[in-house]
Amino acid sequence: MKSYRKELWFEVPTRRAFINITPQVNECLRESRIREGLVLCNAMHITASVFINDDEPGLHEDYKKWLEVLAPFDASPQRYSHNRTGEDNGDAHHKRQIMGREVVVAVTDGRLDFGPWEQIFYGEFDGRRPKRVLVKVIGD
Amino acid sequence: MKSYRKELWFEVPTRRAFINITPQVNECLRESRIREGLVLCNAMHITASVFINDDEPGLHEDYKKWLEVLAPFDASPQRYSHNRTGEDNGDAHHKRQIMGREVVVAVTDGRLDFGPWEQIFYGEFDGRRPKRVLVKVIGD
Amino acid sequence: MKSYRKELWFEVPTRRAFINITPQVNECLRESRIREGLVLCNAMHITASVFINDDEPGLHEDYKKWLEVLAPFDASPQRYSHNRTGEDNGDAHHKRQIMGREVVVAVTDGRLDFGPWEQIFYGEFDGRRPKRVLVKVIGD
Repeated sequence: MKSYRKELWFEVPTRRAFINITPQVNECLRESRIREGLVLCNAMHITASVFINDDEPGLHEDYKKWLEVLAPFDASPQRYSHNRTGEDNGDAHHKRQIMGREVVVAVTDGRLDFGPWEQIFYGEFDGRRPKRVLVKVIGD
Repeated sequence: MKSYRKELWFEVPTRRAFINITPQVNECLRESRIREGLVLCNAMHITASVFINDDEPGLHEDYKKWLEVLAPFDASPQRYSHNRTGEDNGDAHHKRQIMGREVVVAVTDGRLDFGPWEQIFYGEFDGRRPKRVLVKVIGD
Repeated sequence: MKSYRKELWFEVPTRRAFINITPQVNECLRESRIREGLVLCNAMHITASVFINDDEPGLHEDYKKWLEVLAPFDASPQRYSHNRTGEDNGDAHHKRQIMGREVVVAVTDGRLDFGPWEQIFYGEFDGRRPKRVLVKVIGD
């Protein structure tokens, strides 16, 4: 069994953003020389997500609005007890649960084994500082 | 390390449905001859889910009602910017995030290593056309 | 390829709780002697979750309040058809979907390959009885 590991770094200038990281994950897979196996791709921070969906700007706007309804930004400790710690990112910990921490993707014949529209996104909910995504590939 | 891959095809006649695919995944595992490892089972389409829960019709009705509250169907581009593309399935992209894209299940002694009530479901949120689930097994 | 399997048992005295299980998963990894690979850690019950987030009590209170808004406890079969079965845990099946069934964590150099604040939690939504988490490690 072979394994491969790489960290992808992001410093998003805004608090929230979705970034298509499929090209970077493809490059990792190429470097790994693994032909059959699994790729794990996860946010290493707990106010960010990795998820698979459509690369369509309207959808990303919809997600942002929707997450703001489900878990609105509010820096006060009244809505989010977490913000009593001095943080203002209680909302981001909730948004990340909706969008998920990680994806696992099959590797078949040296490629990400994707359906027609699947793309991997980094979902940032508390940006403006350097944060990481882990790409781990195992297989043969 | 051995690997196995199969696509399961579905053409659900309704827009939304939950289908127990545990028998098909078990059959894949049998065909794979893998005794120890992991099964990845994921929707290949971004308006569908694969998830694990209870095979209980009342619960499935509850999920449908609940998802309709969290992300109501609305074909208009007013609620979902995604529908400006000519699609009417903005809601389905949201429902899929709640229910998830994929499950990873342990394989132990040639069987899906499940608790007492775990069953794998295909969750369709924009049916009436052929769509696929990927089953990938790796192990020995 | 090596594999390792262990069940972690919990009997939570309350209906709902979050328990940091990172020490137990670390102990499993040590016992497995696997240096490179993947850990799957999943609830074996469908009214419980395994998820990764922050070990911060305020955040856990926030999650409990938030899940109660998204899927309130209600023993009646009016809100949850599932409760027509005689169960009173319809809400727990919904809460589990938000928080997720499982996590997959990279194993690198014999350790859980974590970002600075990542910790693994068992999320119980229908406790007061013995329930299990599965830890499966594969790799070399």
